[in-house]
Amino acid sequence: MINESDLITLKNIKVVLIQTSHPGNIGSTARAMKTMGLRNLCLVNPKSFPDDVANAMASNAADLLESAKVVDSLQEAIADCHVVIGSSARHERSLSWDVFAPRRCGEVVADLLTKEGTKSKVALVFGRERTGLTNEELALCHHLVHIPTNPEYSSLNVASAVQILAYECRVGVLSDLDSGLEPKNKVAEQTDEEEIVTSNDMQGYYDQLEMLMIESEFLNPNEPRFLMSRIRRLYGRIQISRSELNILRGILSSFQKIMTKDR
Amino acid sequence: MINESDLITLKNIKVVLIQTSHPGNIGSTARAMKTMGLRNLCLVNPKSFPDDVANAMASNAADLLESAKVVDSLQEAIADCHVVIGSSARHERSLSWDVFAPRRCGEVVADLLTKEGTKSKVALVFGRERTGLTNEELALCHHLVHIPTNPEYSSLNVASAVQILAYECRVGVLSDLDSGLEPKNKVAEQTDEEEIVTSNDMQGYYDQLEMLMIESEFLNPNEPRFLMSRIRRLYGRIQISRSELNILRGILSSFQKIMTKDR
Repeated sequence: MINESDLITLKNIKVVLIQTSHPGNIGSTARAMKTMGLRNLCLVNPKSFPDDVANAMASNAADLLESAKVVDSLQEAIADCHVVIGSSARHERSLSWDVFAPRRCGEVVADLLTKEGTKSKVALVFGRERTGLTNEELALCHHLVHIPTNPEYSSLNVASAVQILAYECRVGVLSDLDSGLEPKNKVAEQTDEEEIVTSNDMQGYYDQLEMLMIESEFLNPNEPRFLMSRIRRLYGRIQISRSELNILRGILSSFQKIMTKDR
Repeated sequence: MINESDLITLKNIKVVLIQTSHPGNIGSTARAMKTMGLRNLCLVNPKSFPDDVANAMASNAADLLESAKVVDSLQEAIADCHVVIGSSARHERSLSWDVFAPRRCGEVVADLLTKEGTKSKVALVFGRERTGLTNEELALCHHLVHIPTNPEYSSLNVASAVQILAYECRVGVLSDLDSGLEPKNKVAEQTDEEEIVTSNDMQGYYDQLEMLMIESEFLNPNEPRFLMSRIRRLYGRIQISRSELNILRGILSSFQKIMTKDR
């Protein structure tokens, strides 16, 4: 018999809502999360919060609103997260993301959370009610998840989207626990039992790389096009361990020393 | 490619709400249904219907409210249905029902709907906000479905329950259609329709990188240890597309130009 305390790993899922316009949606999101055992809510520039309407819609999940963090940017919201999954209403065909179905998303998240020895934090990111995620925000996501809606009416409420993905994550974790926790999947393909790096750690790498690419004139900062976001998506597809990042940064720094020697 | 018209069978699902107290829940239910391609709503003794709050919450799914049927009893609601599945917040252990998980419910419904030659109508029945279904109503159900919620907070909103089950039915039908058509791959695991590069292509990248690492003294060719093999394992986990490899090589070459400028 599985108890709720066995599902403690679900608290390592952070739900991030970006610029939510309707406080009621924040409340409904808290309720949706709590029914599935999620607790960790982060709000990026909400229009109004705290708000009585949010509390009313949260029913008895107001404790999640009380502990919710409010931040200024998605970057800040995901700084301590190892894997970032963005919810996308469109099928991002042209771009080279992994686009998960919700079920696959639940399996991937569950594998990350239940694998022994890792303390992975996963962010599920939801965009604005009308306009979703910006390209800059998409670029911060390692994977996308697309809920298959009726193309003639794809107006899924944001709390409903949270409900479906939280449900799939719960089902994923339950099924991993059920199957005896054995290291199921390739997702965490990752080397050794090593710690994987956070978005913040990777940001340091991207910043250094970008600087050198400008130095070498491979990147024109006045016309950057999609170069940095393509690079993010490339590395974002795998989980990079601490010692691997040390190698990547070590290489760049050794190049940098020569490239800037004569300044 | 599956079109929404292929999912026409979803209209043979009737969502039945019993004695709903809050008209907002009726509106949210209509919206949840329509996002998943369901259209057929039946209300048993709603407290207030039609109602402006319901219309507001329905967003652009008010057409489902307009075509909704209002009846006096569950018996009447399900009169034309072949299979009746009741949504239960409790685990009805003592009773001899099949209690489906939502996923199984979606598969069962999809099989009923897509099986050739049948014109099965399926009812999904949802009870009152606080008290659920009465024993008399349970007795009219052929199966029950239980959404696995947090036992410490199982207060799933009725429209959220509809959302999850409607989603599972849609996924079930999509997957049946899929397997009848060509076996599509479940996740666009890779980049566009782009070609993935060969080992040979990657070898060129590794050679160039190694040469520059020696140049910058990051790699000591007399004591290489496992550096190159760790780098191979890192990039080997990413399935790199042709255009991505072009970027990686372009970066290296631009660095190389500066690093070897003064020779």
